[in-house]
Amino acid sequence: MTTPTASNLVWHEASVDRAAREKRRGHRSAIVWFTGLSGSGKSTLANAVNAALFERGLVSYVLDGDNIRHGLCRDLGFSDAAREENIRRIGEVAKLFLDAGTIVITAFVSPFRADRERARALVTEGDFYEVHCAATLAACEARDPKGLYAKARAGAIPHFTGISSPYEEPLIPELRVETGGQALAESVETVLRMLEERGVISAIPS
Amino acid sequence: MTTPTASNLVWHEASVDRAAREKRRGHRSAIVWFTGLSGSGKSTLANAVNAALFERGLVSYVLDGDNIRHGLCRDLGFSDAAREENIRRIGEVAKLFLDAGTIVITAFVSPFRADRERARALVTEGDFYEVHCAATLAACEARDPKGLYAKARAGAIPHFTGISSPYEEPLIPELRVETGGQALAESVETVLRMLEERGVISAIPS
Repeated sequence: MTTPTASNLVWHEASVDRAAREKRRGHRSAIVWFTGLSGSGKSTLANAVNAALFERGLVSYVLDGDNIRHGLCRDLGFSDAAREENIRRIGEVAKLFLDAGTIVITAFVSPFRADRERARALVTEGDFYEVHCAATLAACEARDPKGLYAKARAGAIPHFTGISSPYEEPLIPELRVETGGQALAESVETVLRMLEERGVISAIPS
Repeated sequence: MTTPTASNLVWHEASVDRAAREKRRGHRSAIVWFTGLSGSGKSTLANAVNAALFERGLVSYVLDGDNIRHGLCRDLGFSDAAREENIRRIGEVAKLFLDAGTIVITAFVSPFRADRERARALVTEGDFYEVHCAATLAACEARDPKGLYAKARAGAIPHFTGISSPYEEPLIPELRVETGGQALAESVETVLRMLEERGVISAIPS
């Protein structure tokens, strides 16, 4: 066994592009943009969809509060301007993952229509799938997994979406998922079927 | 052929982690951080290494001025503070790609030692490989592929690294590549051999 030398190395100067990566992977890349109130199940659904895609051998990744708010956006607060910049950066990072050949799933409240539209406008038609996690405020507040609604009602959290800051529902999302009233498995299936119907991934023969 | 239903879908609630992705891909993920003067060949080398990794069937991605400065960091200028924030964001994005199971290659001047050390400190020992593209200022200026040195000498570009802003060479980079005095193929080979020796990728049997 010898070390490869410059003369026998096989590589090209041409850069590898998205199309080459998609061809290698056997599926299109896409941005699946979840939006919905705090407690509507965005992150849970995103991670479950991600796991389902992984089991099918596909390449996906979740961007959510856990890996963004403590990292890239640690310098941002929750004012309207900071939320806009937060979503702008997430849109740009999602675009990088898209280019890298990934089905990137974002799970942020992203309450403002204009911010979501700006994220959509960064990429091409057919690259961006807005998924509304449509649990009602009452359902989310009844759940309140992190106790945030209670704090917001008590005035301890300013600019809290649904309480002291508006949530602007998507008008024509690619998909609306009733995360308040159905089992997680059913929501996962709904998202996967949408991705199949849109031609991002192939249907599993059964 | 029937549509899968919730009951026959196979998926777990457990989230997919970096270890699972690395296992699937057959190589470790890593950050390969190129640093060097403008014109030292960082981006050219990064794209060539990326292509070589792709040909080996590995998963890699390049972050460089083309996809960062016009996107995520479009709001930043070139003052010291803006450069620091630029490198901070790139470090955070590189960390996301690392977590996603990718060999991510960054190609930015990143002139300040402290900024590079902060990027390194975001991840674990063995995840970060600093590669100094060590072409001399004279060689870079003689090349001047974008005419930037000429403009900087004429005072038209403030804070230009090597002319009106310092470049702090890495003291103990994982690798120093003589990009000023050797063929691109040789530089690519040097980087690949380092990644093999560090156990990020496997050597190709020959």
